[in-house]
Amino acid sequence: MSIHADRLAALRAQLQAQGLDGFIIPLTDEHMSEYVGAYARRLEWLTGFQGSAGSAAVLPEKAAMFVDGRYTVQVRTQVDGAFYEYRSVPSEPMAGWLADNAPAGACIGYDPWLATRSFVQQTSAALAAKGATLVAVETNPVDAIWAGKPRPSDAPAEILGDEFTGQNSADKRAAIAAATARAGANAVILSALDSIAWAFNIRGADVARTPVVRAFALVRDDATATIFTSPAKITPEVRAHLGAHVTIEPYEAFGPALEALTGTVLLDPAWCVAAIFEALGRGKARIVEGRDPCILPKAAKNPTEQDGMRAAHVRDGAAMAKFLHSIDTNPPLDELDAERRLEGFRRESNLLKDLSFDSISAIGPNAALPHYRSEAVTNRPFAGEICYLIDSGGQYPDGTTDITRTVSIGTPTPELKDRFTRVLKGHIALATARFPRGTRGGQLDILARQFLWVAGLDYAHGTGHGVGHFLGVHEGPQRIASAPGAQGTDEVLLPGMVLSNEPGFYKPGAYGIRIENLVIVVEDSRDGDEQPMLAFETITMAPIDKRLVEPTLLSPAEIDWVDSYHARVRDALEPQLHGAARDWLLAATSPLLEASRAAA
Amino acid sequence: MSIHADRLAALRAQLQAQGLDGFIIPLTDEHMSEYVGAYARRLEWLTGFQGSAGSAAVLPEKAAMFVDGRYTVQVRTQVDGAFYEYRSVPSEPMAGWLADNAPAGACIGYDPWLATRSFVQQTSAALAAKGATLVAVETNPVDAIWAGKPRPSDAPAEILGDEFTGQNSADKRAAIAAATARAGANAVILSALDSIAWAFNIRGADVARTPVVRAFALVRDDATATIFTSPAKITPEVRAHLGAHVTIEPYEAFGPALEALTGTVLLDPAWCVAAIFEALGRGKARIVEGRDPCILPKAAKNPTEQDGMRAAHVRDGAAMAKFLHSIDTNPPLDELDAERRLEGFRRESNLLKDLSFDSISAIGPNAALPHYRSEAVTNRPFAGEICYLIDSGGQYPDGTTDITRTVSIGTPTPELKDRFTRVLKGHIALATARFPRGTRGGQLDILARQFLWVAGLDYAHGTGHGVGHFLGVHEGPQRIASAPGAQGTDEVLLPGMVLSNEPGFYKPGAYGIRIENLVIVVEDSRDGDEQPMLAFETITMAPIDKRLVEPTLLSPAEIDWVDSYHARVRDALEPQLHGAARDWLLAATSPLLEASRAAA
Repeated sequence: MSIHADRLAALRAQLQAQGLDGFIIPLTDEHMSEYVGAYARRLEWLTGFQGSAGSAAVLPEKAAMFVDGRYTVQVRTQVDGAFYEYRSVPSEPMAGWLADNAPAGACIGYDPWLATRSFVQQTSAALAAKGATLVAVETNPVDAIWAGKPRPSDAPAEILGDEFTGQNSADKRAAIAAATARAGANAVILSALDSIAWAFNIRGADVARTPVVRAFALVRDDATATIFTSPAKITPEVRAHLGAHVTIEPYEAFGPALEALTGTVLLDPAWCVAAIFEALGRGKARIVEGRDPCILPKAAKNPTEQDGMRAAHVRDGAAMAKFLHSIDTNPPLDELDAERRLEGFRRESNLLKDLSFDSISAIGPNAALPHYRSEAVTNRPFAGEICYLIDSGGQYPDGTTDITRTVSIGTPTPELKDRFTRVLKGHIALATARFPRGTRGGQLDILARQFLWVAGLDYAHGTGHGVGHFLGVHEGPQRIASAPGAQGTDEVLLPGMVLSNEPGFYKPGAYGIRIENLVIVVEDSRDGDEQPMLAFETITMAPIDKRLVEPTLLSPAEIDWVDSYHARVRDALEPQLHGAARDWLLAATSPLLEASRAAA
Repeated sequence: MSIHADRLAALRAQLQAQGLDGFIIPLTDEHMSEYVGAYARRLEWLTGFQGSAGSAAVLPEKAAMFVDGRYTVQVRTQVDGAFYEYRSVPSEPMAGWLADNAPAGACIGYDPWLATRSFVQQTSAALAAKGATLVAVETNPVDAIWAGKPRPSDAPAEILGDEFTGQNSADKRAAIAAATARAGANAVILSALDSIAWAFNIRGADVARTPVVRAFALVRDDATATIFTSPAKITPEVRAHLGAHVTIEPYEAFGPALEALTGTVLLDPAWCVAAIFEALGRGKARIVEGRDPCILPKAAKNPTEQDGMRAAHVRDGAAMAKFLHSIDTNPPLDELDAERRLEGFRRESNLLKDLSFDSISAIGPNAALPHYRSEAVTNRPFAGEICYLIDSGGQYPDGTTDITRTVSIGTPTPELKDRFTRVLKGHIALATARFPRGTRGGQLDILARQFLWVAGLDYAHGTGHGVGHFLGVHEGPQRIASAPGAQGTDEVLLPGMVLSNEPGFYKPGAYGIRIENLVIVVEDSRDGDEQPMLAFETITMAPIDKRLVEPTLLSPAEIDWVDSYHARVRDALEPQLHGAARDWLLAATSPLLEASRAAA
């Protein structure tokens, strides 16, 4: 790890040269992205941390890594504790650590293009108590010392046709303009990369796993727009697709353009970084804060997008079935071999654009880490009487998939079957939930946990996250989780929203279980209803391993759900499978009680 | 209603005399109480409104009543629409109405002793947009025109012995002082009347239905305290009980005392009115805002308080059983006769101090109003094939009760049985919930609604409210409801907290159903638990009407719950009943399937 020690030393020297006593290194980009391009992986370059969420703070004598419960283990394997303290958020926030450890009167730097205004305000307040100050840097000191830092991607933007989007970009711009006017603004700044991709019906390859184009956009109340991005990305076809009312400016022209703006500008403080507020503050424009007008229409998929998501899941399910069949009949060597094999099956469709995230391919104890990523040092062989967990997904032009299956290897223990069946009962309770319009995701979370709670068990992650349409595999605002208030649990569920349904159970050092399907929120009106009701349609199509199910723990209604789900899976996948794989599918989707009788 | 028209006219004249263009009339007192003494019933005196929540705003040309969904019907029967517009909160807040209707530059008065600072800030901001201002009045203009306004009660305070409280007042003061010091303050102001009653182990009769003493209190970090109340209330016994470290000052001395305070003072902005902040602002003391340190220890009952609550419910259950028996065998004339009869049975114990709230005694269509109160004009006779709903409770020295039962009259329709059974299933799901420490009430709400949702049905009120120990029948902060964020739904449930479990169903114009028991949050540790788990212990003891249950809709586990609950009820109540009432109890608590077989 000494390379990271050297980089830390170099950063401290650079900070001194820039007159700073410390610096904050988040894991995001100028667009508050969860997954970022190579050029923006400053935290990983500096510390070695490869998780998808975390941050670091560096002081002259001390440094610390701040990660949430998902990465408590990983941070210790990837980041050297000799140079970085480990802190757990949200219980040990960076602001508190800085206030406790910064020298009195210290001057702590941050990059205003990589931080929200609320983060800046909260951290400044905490530091003020110590007489320390938070200052925006002109140039990021990590960039100054990062030899061979990758340039931002110049991958060309691609058109996503109306046959996939169901709404052309001009209509979307008109709707955004109307929403902007309703908010009392003359223009809105789009900063979130998924909002820009959705609004202009374009996709890109600037960020691994998420098909976005690195850009900012300004949409005016007359429905004209300017996209700030690398002109090299805009092919003649894309230029023609965008039309005469959309102009292109270089990415670097965005900052100056903000200072030149006039009138009232709508900003979403959750997505627009502090630098955007500062640049507008230097200019003449008046700021009105409000929600990015793309967020809800993007989250509530239209019928074309819904059909695309369904089709993508039928296609993806065939790859999963081939993979699950091969696990039973011709086991891979190890975790890495398995995930390569699954990606191969997905590529057979010739429609896979990318995986939707780095696969979690985990055997036994590795599966007990909900956000495990297999590497050479952790890679485990297929052996022993345990289970295998595969959490993966694909990016297709018609939709994004995200599925987790847990597979029996050898003979499952009674405990494993008990835990798997409790997780399955929770999955079914959520999948079959019926709820009034206006219900929020947080209200439904307990449905997935209740059967684990009866046994004094639980899982330490959310139950469901939003999913984008050929966009982010984690794309809110909707969320099903127990965390109060923040994080989307208070977001009202709207028809067309797509969420994951992924309860799990994890026994550290032994095994991990997760059953994940994606669902669409659908209208569900029946005779006698006294109010508009909603329900979930499960769109993921792949067998759930019946060898791990203890049928005596299921109610007749739960057994019916498993059998009818498997019948749907069989009907959807059988036409795509042949020979042994097809035979395997028929057996894997046969009724549960038959299966248990056979096993008995 | 012309008397209220005259009063409105008199108020407008008074406002003019005080140089005001309008005035705000809330339904509360100087302590943000839900139930208030006669002297504070300004809203009822002015408008005729008798609900437990609401407010009015009066302008030169217009006036409006603001009530929530519970009182939409009642406000129209009690308040003359010719003089008051009806507005529904929270969707139509008073601040918005004032901003829309106040004359430009208007000067709107409010009584700073009857409003929180946040209400003042929000309303001022809304008015500022219209160039209108909100001004604090020296004397309340309603009081100025209220001839024969009752004086605040001089009812003596009474000692609540340690055998009931389980902790003496000196120990409580020491704990409050320690919490105050931890909050960085030298003293804390207690404004909530239940906090003061709890902290000093005293009870009173200043407010109907809630045994509190009208007072403010100041507790210092040295555990000395001053109670500001009418000296007439402090008998020699109470004076001796309070001890040498507690001094008594007149209620009227509180304001001046605030201005004389020094050091740092802890205030809970949810309970301390704006006038308290203003008075401290005029003085030298520094304010630190934080939660009233009595709230959580008061909510989490100690073992003595829990045993008292259990005993009170066994006693109260006997009165309920006698009442329910008499309904079946010797029906009352009407709703009012029935609630008088029930109060009579409660008084037979000679331990009833008061009812814990005005009984809801409702037949048929009246029961469809969740917060109905029977009056001569609405009173209905016992007749027809419908059901009777009785929601009532008692105040006993060892605890507070709150129970709702719905009773069959004549032959129940299949629809009525279906709805009742769905409500019962939800009641059982919540009563049998098992959940990890840290769970919040809002997470559990769906358990009580899920079986109604399946049929597209719901109820428009919360599922559970906190209950005090011989104190407020609505006493938070804990709450089980679907409302996000506010109102206690995000409050973590702690062992010892008491809540109601009261799902319902209401068919306007036809009938209403509610099944309410009180529960205590208890530790529930079992072999194999991987974390500390909690559960509910049901303490209400009265039969649930089996004639309204459709057993074919219940699972075996649900039938077991009903039977074992009824077995507990039988064991608890049988020793207190004799003759026909005892025979009725045995039949009413016999196993469900026997009963249904008998019925068949």
